[in-house]
Formats: sequence, structure tokens, C-alpha cells
Amino acid sequence: MNAVTHPEITLVPNNSLLTATPEEGRQLAVKMARLIVKLTQPDEEKRNQLRDVYGNDAMMLIAVGQTVATEFATIAAANNYWRK
Amino acid sequence: MNAVTHPEITLVPNNSLLTATPEEGRQLAVKMARLIVKLTQPDEEKRNQLRDVYGNDAMMLIAVGQTVATEFATIAAANNYWRK
Amino acid sequence: MNAVTHPEITLVPNNSLLTATPEEGRQLAVKMARLIVKLTQPDEEKRNQLRDVYGNDAMMLIAVGQTVATEFATIAAANNYWRK
Amino acid sequence: MNAVTHPEITLVPNNSLLTATPEEGRQLAVKMARLIVKLTQPDEEKRNQLRDVYGNDAMMLIAVGQTVATEFATIAAANNYWRK
Amino acid sequence: MNAVTHPEITLVPNNSLLTATPEEGRQLAVKMARLIVKLTQPDEEKRNQLRDVYGNDAMMLIAVGQTVATEFATIAAANNYWRK
Amino acid sequence: MNAVTHPEITLVPNNSLLTATPEEGRQLAVKMARLIVKLTQPDEEKRNQLRDVYGNDAMMLIAVGQTVATEFATIAAANNYWRK
Repeated sequence: MNAVTHPEITLVPNNSLLTATPEEGRQLAVKMARLIVKLTQPDEEKRNQLRDVYGNDAMMLIAVGQTVATEFATIAAANNYWRK
Repeated sequence: MNAVTHPEITLVPNNSLLTATPEEGRQLAVKMARLIVKLTQPDEEKRNQLRDVYGNDAMMLIAVGQTVATEFATIAAANNYWRK
Repeated sequence: MNAVTHPEITLVPNNSLLTATPEEGRQLAVKMARLIVKLTQPDEEKRNQLRDVYGNDAMMLIAVGQTVATEFATIAAANNYWRK
Repeated sequence: MNAVTHPEITLVPNNSLLTATPEEGRQLAVKMARLIVKLTQPDEEKRNQLRDVYGNDAMMLIAVGQTVATEFATIAAANNYWRK
Repeated sequence: MNAVTHPEITLVPNNSLLTATPEEGRQLAVKMARLIVKLTQPDEEKRNQLRDVYGNDAMMLIAVGQTVATEFATIAAANNYWRK
Repeated sequence: MNAVTHPEITLVPNNSLLTATPEEGRQLAVKMARLIVKLTQPDEEKRNQLRDVYGNDAMMLIAVGQTVATEFATIAAANNYWRK
């Protein structure tokens, strides 16, 4: 088994991809994408500065969406698309 | 289960990926992509300014298409490609 | 069910991902990618100007291909890769 | 069924994703990616100029690889990864 | 079988995609993405300089997230999404 | 069947996606990505110059990782994730 631990930052909240609903799954995708930004740039002040940058840059906003879309694809598959 | 709530913005309309038709699924993909832009940039006026930017920039228009294509892939799989 | 309607622009021709052949599926992928550009930039004259831009820009031409490749992946899966 | 025809350019050689081997599948992926460039920029002379551009630009070379990788993923799945 | 060996750099820790939990899978995705950077730029000092660059560049931070998201999609599928 | 041959450059070593281990699969993904660069820019000297460029450019290094991640996703699926 693989255990490459980064103890200080949890990358998957609740250590599970399973959510009750698509909405929670979508929020998890957003959260997991942000946690990679946090892992790559641990300095909160810098992250806030960078968020002002990408929040006001059309291309970056689009790129954020691409990352969330890919994360969500994985989470949706994990939850069998929340089909009853 | 995971519940990372962003109460103020719903990220998945009707909290479901299931749509009656591909057309509705495609529109849901567009809507979900836009909701991530809204989540990342809550200021409506700024978003409208940014829409003028990416609406007139060839590369950004293409990048919007890439995001929608990835979202749609997930929604199409969720709906088993609307096969009868 | 989800019904986020954009009545004025149809995003999925014939409201189906099913095509008789891979060639038709590929053309549908191109068409669906273009319809997102149209949805994002409804002004035809502007779109024609933008097409001159990306038609003569190597990186943009490549990016168009990435979008079509992602759309086609979905359409091919929907048609079970046109396996007999 | 969908039939969005672009009679002048065939986008899928032999109108099939099925190939005898991974090598042929990989070459088909390259060919299909190039046919979208051709569809988007029908002028051969311009395409040759653009090929000189992206052939000598590191980022564009990488981006070409991303497109081929996505096309190949679809073709490999279509051929069930050429598993015997 | 294929054996294209790069003996000096191991690209897949423990030569396995299987992890006990999503958290370990996520960390493996990060690790595998970094190992490709290491393979492409073996000079550690240069990598550290580059990490300062992308750690402070909003678009690059987003792009790192896109790579991790794609790696994680593969690892999650390999582990059947850690469904019990 | 499709046979679009580029006899001079083999794009898939050993004409197979099957590898004994994830490590070999990962190296195959790197190799296949590089072979597309070689196909697109056959001039070895130019490729070496370009490798110096992207080896020292943070965004390009990340983009290389995105291509390898997509190639690896296909190879991992082909090998059923090397599950015993």
C-alpha cells in the first residue's frame, strides 16, 4: 500500500469521496481543488492575494472551473452519479 | 459523509445531475460551469465585466468550451448518455 | 429533473448524442463545441472576427482541438464507440 | 440520428475508431487531431506556416501532445485497449 | 510487455496505485505529479527556484491543480473509489 | 480497419499498452508523450533546445505533467490498474 503522508494538510475532507448529494459532491470538488492550492502555497496571506488575482482574471476564473470540473468528474463517478 | 456547505450559492441546480434530455444536460453543464465562476467571483458587476472580456477573446472562448465539455462528460455519463 | 432552458440557442442538435457513424459523431462534437462559443458570444460578426483570430493562431488551433477531443470522447462513449 | 455533414473534409479516416494495433490507434489519434486543425484552418499554406510555429514552440508542442493524448484515450477505449 | 526503464527516478512510489484511503490516494497523486517534474528537471536547485515561481503565480497554481486532478482520477478509479 | 502509417517513427513502443507494473506503465506514458513531440518536431537538436526551454519554465513543466497524466490514465485503464 502507499502512504505518502503530508500530515499538516488534509487533502480529502473526511477521507472520503462519498457524499449524500451532488451539491455536497460539487462542494467537495471545490474544497479538494483549493486544498491543492493550499498544499502548493501554504502561506495564507499569499493565497488571499492570489485569490484577488484569479478572481479578477477571466482566463484564470475559467481555469479554476476546469480543475473543479475534473475533480467533480471523479467524485461523481465515486458516488455512481447519485443514482438512486 | 462529506458536507462542505457553501449555503449562499447552490452549485448544482435541483441538486441532481439527471436531466430528461441531452439538451437539458448540456444547459446544466453550462450552468454548473458558470456557478463556479460565481462562487469564485461573487461580485456580479465584476462577473459582467469579465464576461465582456472572455466573450471577445478567442482563447478564453475556447477555454470556456473546454470546461463545459468536461462538465458535460460527467452529466452525460450520469444520465447513461440518455440511451433509451 | 433539471430544465435550465436557453430557448434561443439549441446546444445539442437533434437533442441526441447518438449518431450512425464515427464521422457523424465527430462532426457533432465540432458542432457542439461551436454552439458553446455561440452561446457565450451570440454576436455573429464578432464570432467571425474571432474565428479569423484563432484560425491563424497556432496555440488557439491546438486548443480548439482539445475541446473537440473532449466532446468527442463523450459522444463516442454514448455510441459505444460504434462497435457493431 | 445526427448528421451534421462537412462533406469536404473527412474527420474520421475510414469512418471507424477500430484499429488492428495500438500503433495504428495512436497514428489515428494524431491524424484525427490534425483533421480538426484542417477543418478550422482549411488553407494548407497557412497550416504549414503554423506548423513551423508550433514545431518550434515548447508550450505548443506540449499542447499538441495533450490533444493527442485525449484523442488516443477515446480510440484506446474504443478498441478495448487492444486486449486479446 | 513494455519496460522503458528510467532506473534513477522511480515514478510510482511502491510501484502501486492502490492506497488504503482517499487521503493516501490524493497524496500519491501529488507525489506522482511532482515526480514527473523531477524527471523533466532533475536539478533540485532549479526545481526549488521553479516552485517559488509557480507557488506565487495564480495561473500556475491552478494548472498544478489540474494535473493533480487528472492523476487523482486515475488513482481513484484504480482503487474503485475506496468503496467498501 | 485503420492504418495511417508513419513508418519512420514508432509511436507506441512494443506496439502494446500492457506493462507488468505501474512503474513501467508510467514510463511508457512519458515515452509516448515524448514520441509525439518527436513526431511533431523530428529535428533532434531543436528538441534538445526546446527541452532546455520547458525544463526551466514552471508553466511548461506543469503542462508536461498534464500530458503524462492523461497518457497514464489510458495506460492504467488498459492494464486494469494492475489489480491482481
